[in-house]
Amino acid sequence: MTVTAAAAPPPVAADALEAKIRAIGAERYHSLHPFHRLLHGGRCTRAQVRAWALNRYCYQAAIPRKDAAVLAGLTDRALRRAWIGRIHDHDGHGDDPGGIERWLRLTDGLGLDRDYVMSMQGALPATRMAVEHYVQYVKDHPGLGAIASCLTELFAPSLHAERISGMLEHYDFIDDSVMTYFRRRLTQAPRDCDMALAYVREHARSEESQQLVLDAVTMKTNVLWVQLDALYHAYVAPGHIPPGAYVPPEE
Amino acid sequence: MTVTAAAAPPPVAADALEAKIRAIGAERYHSLHPFHRLLHGGRCTRAQVRAWALNRYCYQAAIPRKDAAVLAGLTDRALRRAWIGRIHDHDGHGDDPGGIERWLRLTDGLGLDRDYVMSMQGALPATRMAVEHYVQYVKDHPGLGAIASCLTELFAPSLHAERISGMLEHYDFIDDSVMTYFRRRLTQAPRDCDMALAYVREHARSEESQQLVLDAVTMKTNVLWVQLDALYHAYVAPGHIPPGAYVPPEE
Repeated sequence: MTVTAAAAPPPVAADALEAKIRAIGAERYHSLHPFHRLLHGGRCTRAQVRAWALNRYCYQAAIPRKDAAVLAGLTDRALRRAWIGRIHDHDGHGDDPGGIERWLRLTDGLGLDRDYVMSMQGALPATRMAVEHYVQYVKDHPGLGAIASCLTELFAPSLHAERISGMLEHYDFIDDSVMTYFRRRLTQAPRDCDMALAYVREHARSEESQQLVLDAVTMKTNVLWVQLDALYHAYVAPGHIPPGAYVPPEE
Repeated sequence: MTVTAAAAPPPVAADALEAKIRAIGAERYHSLHPFHRLLHGGRCTRAQVRAWALNRYCYQAAIPRKDAAVLAGLTDRALRRAWIGRIHDHDGHGDDPGGIERWLRLTDGLGLDRDYVMSMQGALPATRMAVEHYVQYVKDHPGLGAIASCLTELFAPSLHAERISGMLEHYDFIDDSVMTYFRRRLTQAPRDCDMALAYVREHARSEESQQLVLDAVTMKTNVLWVQLDALYHAYVAPGHIPPGAYVPPEE
């Protein structure tokens, strides 16, 4: 759905901005994080995959609150009507159980207790802080900053495609039925980020607003990266699990 | 849609709380405001009806942002799935143009320029301040306070029914086609407030949380009342229209 107004955007400046956004992704997106190399290459233990899925649940569960906060900052009705579909994608709507439920099928499939996952009691403190930092950023930067912070979705489809094939190939405890979250995101994410990118290209015309956009995208890459750093430290090397966080059973 | 958990609520305390909420409505709901007596009794001029509809647009236009702010504060997925329908009711969804569009058909029917209405430039400053106060309250009181502030809908259906019959009877410039907003609200508001009331009855168990609920409902009645006071002062008596606000054409 196109939400740009009739006025033609300034293509040269918008192209330059988009190139800078994509450069941030090329340098900072969490597809580059060592933990993802391990995960997708089949070098994680089942315990590590469980810890990843359990922590990532915190992020998934927060996304509808984040998108509602984006919506609360939008005064344009057509834009709200387009954006609200993201909340349905994650919370579900009608017969669609939604992305959070699909994520819980993944954690179910990994043998994690659903109530424990949903309680978030075993999640790493750094994960929860990073996620809430993202939600708060969106509340504090209504409109352009909030929308720009979602642009990491530009980089997600290739990560998800790599994840689906890598995890199915390498792990005997992962089968196709638990990977539906990522399959669905292969089509949802491009649709969403086309809308967000069109908005940013059109509305970030001043130097100040373009810097806001770049800062928002950088912030978001940090939110994603911090989560994997914490996961690596706790569950890979040196393997210092913080007090109270999930301790995988002996395998 | 019921969103209460399986645990039985404490009926005596919940009944007492509901009675106090309804008592606030009986004393403070804007159905009691002198402006509404004039409006529904056919004693407003067309200019005054125009001023009312133009100002009330600010409130209508803010409701989806308010409901998105409520949603941003909800951690319960089932509750979010129920609440999100309010945003669709106002912004529209699929073929339904939504309540804001229906309100604009009312202002169209009154001969107001749509761009001028949507710009809100002619709205009274007090209207816009009251509306934004409501949106900010919801952001500042996630969960119980935010939900409770919506409970004035308990009192809306009788006001809307009175308005539909009164305005159709008394004004030759009002016909059925422009009153669809209120007709639709006759069924939407009871469904919405059943959900909000069930939530409040179940979750406001401590004295402190019950006081929060009563304060939220009182705040909301003030938000509504302030708008009519300002309208009365500007357009009825003494008729001091503030600088920059809508000046009706000579009739």
